[in-house]
Amino acid sequence: MKLGTVLFEGNERVVVETEEGRAALVPQEVAASIIDLIRSWPEGRERLKRAAQVEPSFVMGDLTWLPPVPAPGKVVCVALNNSANKTRIMSGPSHPATFIKPASSLIGHGAPIKLRAEYGRVHPEPELAVIIGRTASGVSAEDAMGHVFGYTILNDLTSPTMRAEDTFHYRAIHPRSDGTEGIEYVDSWVSYPGRYKGADTFGPIGPWIATLDELADPHDLAITCSHQGRVVTKDNTGNLTNQTADVIAFVSSYQSLYPGDVLALGTALQADSVQGGAIQNIDLNKLGGPIEVTISGIGALSNPVVHL
Amino acid sequence: MKLGTVLFEGNERVVVETEEGRAALVPQEVAASIIDLIRSWPEGRERLKRAAQVEPSFVMGDLTWLPPVPAPGKVVCVALNNSANKTRIMSGPSHPATFIKPASSLIGHGAPIKLRAEYGRVHPEPELAVIIGRTASGVSAEDAMGHVFGYTILNDLTSPTMRAEDTFHYRAIHPRSDGTEGIEYVDSWVSYPGRYKGADTFGPIGPWIATLDELADPHDLAITCSHQGRVVTKDNTGNLTNQTADVIAFVSSYQSLYPGDVLALGTALQADSVQGGAIQNIDLNKLGGPIEVTISGIGALSNPVVHL
Repeated sequence: MKLGTVLFEGNERVVVETEEGRAALVPQEVAASIIDLIRSWPEGRERLKRAAQVEPSFVMGDLTWLPPVPAPGKVVCVALNNSANKTRIMSGPSHPATFIKPASSLIGHGAPIKLRAEYGRVHPEPELAVIIGRTASGVSAEDAMGHVFGYTILNDLTSPTMRAEDTFHYRAIHPRSDGTEGIEYVDSWVSYPGRYKGADTFGPIGPWIATLDELADPHDLAITCSHQGRVVTKDNTGNLTNQTADVIAFVSSYQSLYPGDVLALGTALQADSVQGGAIQNIDLNKLGGPIEVTISGIGALSNPVVHL
Repeated sequence: MKLGTVLFEGNERVVVETEEGRAALVPQEVAASIIDLIRSWPEGRERLKRAAQVEPSFVMGDLTWLPPVPAPGKVVCVALNNSANKTRIMSGPSHPATFIKPASSLIGHGAPIKLRAEYGRVHPEPELAVIIGRTASGVSAEDAMGHVFGYTILNDLTSPTMRAEDTFHYRAIHPRSDGTEGIEYVDSWVSYPGRYKGADTFGPIGPWIATLDELADPHDLAITCSHQGRVVTKDNTGNLTNQTADVIAFVSSYQSLYPGDVLALGTALQADSVQGGAIQNIDLNKLGGPIEVTISGIGALSNPVVHL
């Protein structure tokens, strides 16, 4: 089953895919919101199935798409999680490292990415994202998949210009390493992603959540990023270093995940050698859009670019 | 006026300070939640004032405190924003750099900070935080204060151990600097705060929001951090490099701020020279609690520590 959220006659409405490229409104008495549906799963699925043939159905392009979970409690993103990164990392953790993208940065399929000149370079990052179904706190990898509601697509827009600007080289205060009272300074680098990952419209997401039963294996999916119709990256979710169950287990060991939370698994970035390109070369601020991410079995997320 | 949120008989209830150390429940028909009150301000203030003498009132310690805004849309935190940092920064931006703390990390006054051995060192960071009242998007510094609902206290708990673990030294992919097609590698450092700032219970906040009319100048407030009754840091909010109006103007230039959002202004860290200490020496994982942050005109936020 594939579910999404649209704005219809001024209201947020849950939609379900009826056939490729078409979506039907779910009656509000069956699902008032996607988060209600997630909380009532799997009973909610039976309600959806029992509901009479939902009408009317629309061509996807005729609908105004919102993020499939319009206001998730948090969006946790895993960094540098592709096996292609390994040769580039001189030092770093073997566990998943994460940052938080604010829910206010999310936009739906078809909504414009709004860029300002001062953002500098802005590139796409095509990602598989998990929608949490049941609260996960301290769960094992073996139990993790029972906490998944489904999967969606996130385009984790990133400005390397703002990343460089928001990086500090500084002397961090540490306790004295000899154990005596007092402090000492340690030469450190620290970068803050609030702006370069969290600006408004930096989180295109959706249009569909493919529910768990829809995808037998979330780590055998083709993922493609296309710019103005040209494929710039092709990859497979099998190349993610830390995969869904292990990421949920690790994150939930320190940070509770709640129904509707989004957990993005990291960028697919195998370069398309035919084109000689890389997502880092797709500067949306210079080149404009549209930018599209597709994942087999989930769908296609496409967004135009406008300049403010 | 000072407002907070407590858990009372299983329900979230708004409370108002009646006298030092005492809080009264606000009738639910006057304020169903703090966010409703924020959205209806200043009309909501008149409702509060017109409401009959609210009863009963409680000693603060007898109440179960929640974060004053229990589920803010986002918590934006400004980094390295104290004038005392200046001599420590070798390179970095002059504008506010930020990260997002997940709402799931917030806990109320009196609730336990829950630490695990693998978190390593965990130190307090006493901070003045703004509660947004009206949506701020692209506002000027002159207009910024009209978007403030009030001020609260955040203890921005931080693990420098996890910060070091979640820092990568890597070769970032950039477009070729000579302008030809293709990529080149740039030696870079990047750190991810999802864990070292965002673990469960790493965000004690409250107990009170002092509304805007309560504080004539948010940048002339004494701020103190005490550990087990010993003062470890004293400072004044006047020492913040980027102050409220400028931070709101800068952040809102790329990231819309919505009613109930929290904007923490950065750590007060003038060392108390008498004690020779620093907040970085207060390893709560080794030393336990309680840890208290006070800001004059707002209140005192105190939390015990438990080990999981």
